[in-house]
Amino acid sequence: MSEEQRPPTRWAPERWEGIPTPFLAVDVPTLRANIGRAQAFCDDRGLRLRPHVKTHKTPEIARLQVDAGARGLAVATVGEAECFAAAGFDDLFIAYPVHTNAALARRLRQLLETADLVLGIDSHDGVDALVRHGLSDHPRLSLLVEVECGLRRTGVAPEDAGRLASYAADHGLAVSGVFTFPGHGYAVGAAGAAAADEAKALSEAAAAFSDAGLSCTVRSGGATPTYEATDTTVVTETRPGVYAFHDAQQVALGAASPEDVALAVVTTVVSAPAPDRIVLDAGSKTLAADRPSFVDGHGLLLGVPGARIDRIWEHHGVVDTSGADPGEVPKVGDRVAVLPNHVCTAVNLADRLYARAADGIVTWDVAARGRNG
Amino acid sequence: MSEEQRPPTRWAPERWEGIPTPFLAVDVPTLRANIGRAQAFCDDRGLRLRPHVKTHKTPEIARLQVDAGARGLAVATVGEAECFAAAGFDDLFIAYPVHTNAALARRLRQLLETADLVLGIDSHDGVDALVRHGLSDHPRLSLLVEVECGLRRTGVAPEDAGRLASYAADHGLAVSGVFTFPGHGYAVGAAGAAAADEAKALSEAAAAFSDAGLSCTVRSGGATPTYEATDTTVVTETRPGVYAFHDAQQVALGAASPEDVALAVVTTVVSAPAPDRIVLDAGSKTLAADRPSFVDGHGLLLGVPGARIDRIWEHHGVVDTSGADPGEVPKVGDRVAVLPNHVCTAVNLADRLYARAADGIVTWDVAARGRNG
Repeated sequence: MSEEQRPPTRWAPERWEGIPTPFLAVDVPTLRANIGRAQAFCDDRGLRLRPHVKTHKTPEIARLQVDAGARGLAVATVGEAECFAAAGFDDLFIAYPVHTNAALARRLRQLLETADLVLGIDSHDGVDALVRHGLSDHPRLSLLVEVECGLRRTGVAPEDAGRLASYAADHGLAVSGVFTFPGHGYAVGAAGAAAADEAKALSEAAAAFSDAGLSCTVRSGGATPTYEATDTTVVTETRPGVYAFHDAQQVALGAASPEDVALAVVTTVVSAPAPDRIVLDAGSKTLAADRPSFVDGHGLLLGVPGARIDRIWEHHGVVDTSGADPGEVPKVGDRVAVLPNHVCTAVNLADRLYARAADGIVTWDVAARGRNG
Repeated sequence: MSEEQRPPTRWAPERWEGIPTPFLAVDVPTLRANIGRAQAFCDDRGLRLRPHVKTHKTPEIARLQVDAGARGLAVATVGEAECFAAAGFDDLFIAYPVHTNAALARRLRQLLETADLVLGIDSHDGVDALVRHGLSDHPRLSLLVEVECGLRRTGVAPEDAGRLASYAADHGLAVSGVFTFPGHGYAVGAAGAAAADEAKALSEAAAAFSDAGLSCTVRSGGATPTYEATDTTVVTETRPGVYAFHDAQQVALGAASPEDVALAVVTTVVSAPAPDRIVLDAGSKTLAADRPSFVDGHGLLLGVPGARIDRIWEHHGVVDTSGADPGEVPKVGDRVAVLPNHVCTAVNLADRLYARAADGIVTWDVAARGRNG
């Protein structure tokens, strides 16, 4: 993608006129470029790209990903799976240790009428619940055992993966492999080591499968900061999500430049109450409150060098302008663009995205917004 | 309200069966008790209670507040005002320095057809924008000048309030007084001093009005942690929001006990991957990521003494159970209740609330959810 197609002025107010602030603006050429670049990277290495759509929750964007070559989608919840199945996607991995009850079992069976479904599993209890609710032996359902690779979140120890897989197989469930999430790669300079941890855990888990007499065809990992460091001698599939948009967090990690970020919050300066301060109409209900220790401020304010969003309330983003050139500080009524720290949680606050391509602006419903269960 | 009516077991799973987790549960007797207690407190002191409905965004709850005696509502955005006007509320204060453009002016005029509207203002630019878009001389529109009382957010210095009010009045706008937000009362032990700052700022602003030959009838302040310390010799109106529900933050501040909290996130244990850890299906997309320094953990997990939600991702709440009695740690598949740190941002993530009263559970739409502009 040439600079001409992705002008640094893509968030300029005149390109987004008439939309009430604050709103989420998507630059479609940048989005397509991000999707294409990741797909080419994976294709070149024989790595299956299964994008995690919790980032955008938007079927139109998943369609761009699949059209570019993605094979299947990863989702976080049964509700997200339902949304994307309704939009016609038929290969869905719920990358989560879903605990099935009677109501969830009904919903899973409904999903299986139109989609191949992969479920995460990390406990014997989870297997028992699937069996108890009649989900054994379904031809379109398979499991991946979640293993832990350093994040200390969910997942069994790699050496226990074979035992859990055997238990599931003995109960009539198809187990096709293992997955992990190298989320500890979300720290400056940590991506390479996290990717190595991922490969080690998946490799050990595959060996445990082998010891149990099971094959481990799928070895799935990945996160946006780590997927380019994937060890493809071990890992068969990667599930980054944020890469489609990127965000201020990825910029801070060095995984993207501000020019790579395809989504910005467009906001209005509503107050300039002191010489060193302006206030935006975007706060935690628009930008989300995520603020990892390695990110400076509550989002990256573009176009005002030296300024920093240092405090937020629900509808206020307070910008410290003491380090900025006074001539460059926006005035009351001006619109500015902010790259949110974590795009997944910012998108989940919005009912729609305003997407601009060569032929104008369209709105995309964030169809799976709030589908947390 | 007796303990019998508000049993400590109000979040017990059997009272909320059949609802998919994670979800937001509201105990209506506790909600009514909170509303009634605050109203009685204000009524006893001749203080007008204008509840801030950004907390719940739910017309059914605003109706309970008005039926209990609240006079008018405070909202944060024009979108919230539209939602509550559509539900029949006709006295709305947009407690925010709205910057009017042509589109917003159309929406404000539409609102003024059915409601008395008060707007915040904190700049000459804001006045100019109202005038430019034809909002002078509207019989149902009035302004309150926002003054700063220590939070360093929006608002002019108190001594400048008279000058701004004169400027607005000279341009045909009705100015009825001043408002401030003592948000620096959100710190342990800070409420009394913040309420004193509020009174000082409103008093100075009223004096500045007087010097400018203007009357300052409305002197509005308040926040949940501070309103009980309101100096009613100065302040005429208070705008707490959170008090209707309360939350873990208010518990940490000493403004409420866990038994006073009327809303909980009900969540399922989905994983127990290590002896010192369980994982809930509620993370930052359900609980929100707000975490003030004075709050311990990402929400208050009830019923498991010594346990703490110490890390969250979007759909994972990781509970450190190392300090808990192993016999009391919930198991995979169990449901538990969490009081969110900040109820306003948690509610804004949900499309509906499940409200339980004596006659059963009803759902309330969070009708103004996401109405940020």
